[in-house]
Amino acid sequence: MDALRRRILADGRDLGGGILKVDGFINHQVDPVLMEACGRELARRFAGAGVTKVLTAEISGIAPALCAALALGVPVVYARKQRPITMPAQVYLATAPSHTKAAQVELMVSPEYLRSGDRVLIVDDFLASGATILALARLVAAGGAAVAGVGVVIEKTFEGGRRAVEALGVPVVALARIASMHEGTITFVEEASR
Amino acid sequence: MDALRRRILADGRDLGGGILKVDGFINHQVDPVLMEACGRELARRFAGAGVTKVLTAEISGIAPALCAALALGVPVVYARKQRPITMPAQVYLATAPSHTKAAQVELMVSPEYLRSGDRVLIVDDFLASGATILALARLVAAGGAAVAGVGVVIEKTFEGGRRAVEALGVPVVALARIASMHEGTITFVEEASR
Repeated sequence: MDALRRRILADGRDLGGGILKVDGFINHQVDPVLMEACGRELARRFAGAGVTKVLTAEISGIAPALCAALALGVPVVYARKQRPITMPAQVYLATAPSHTKAAQVELMVSPEYLRSGDRVLIVDDFLASGATILALARLVAAGGAAVAGVGVVIEKTFEGGRRAVEALGVPVVALARIASMHEGTITFVEEASR
Repeated sequence: MDALRRRILADGRDLGGGILKVDGFINHQVDPVLMEACGRELARRFAGAGVTKVLTAEISGIAPALCAALALGVPVVYARKQRPITMPAQVYLATAPSHTKAAQVELMVSPEYLRSGDRVLIVDDFLASGATILALARLVAAGGAAVAGVGVVIEKTFEGGRRAVEALGVPVVALARIASMHEGTITFVEEASR
């Protein structure tokens, strides 16, 4: 997605150690116009997948997932990391290593909102190791639902998560695929337009 | 906002103790169409306020704030409760009691995204005690910016937060105002349409 790649080059920052700072337009501060365009593009790519629900993980997945859900016309569920008092005692729970905080996180979804028959598009801001997305897929399975696809805003291909996520056997779409970051230079994977 | 009030009556649940469960359409699971309508209505109500930025607190403020920002055509910033590694060491920080988790939370905003000259619309899902909104207003002040208004999806008038928030001296808009919840019956404040 050209607009996204241009924005990453203009405002993203390689902080070293594989960390890409995009908190001026994707997380922390969000550009809603860019995010809406990302949501529309994900909806276009999964238009034929029979998606009934979008699932993401709080916090930074919420903005792209909401925009994808809006474009698809389906509800979005964000897995919670802490149990609000409004959540029932029995929940679907999966754990994942936190990529940027060096800890395990729990992801919880109320059984009210993931059902057998749901076809779930998993959306997140980043595909890195794939651990969060695989945890979300386990929540989908716990609810007896099916994963219809995986859509992310930015993939860091050098972290190898795609192979792990492709084991789910569903289409995996990344709107910008970063091949390498080296001394501040961000290089994208060359791709034909779709 | 009629559609919102109808949805609260249909799908909201009075859990007792002043707790309203709306996690089927506002937090946890989000109805993006309803949320977009809420965002448009907030944008309409603040159309003349010269808003340059929307500010909210993660987590459940993100969806309505993003939709308001999209309708206003301005960026949205969500204050973080935990510092991501992409955040600079020097941040604006305010603390607030967490309404539903019986603890203090820290709210942090990077100085990169709140500037002198910004006119900030503070958006959240709930106005209850007003403590979160006042903490967000302190972050705005720390950035040398001005609060242009406060917009929330649901106000629980019986928690008295409006008086505290009105001390900011800016318009306070709630899209649905709940006067009382008693044994499962939710009663709205009677209002003329605007």
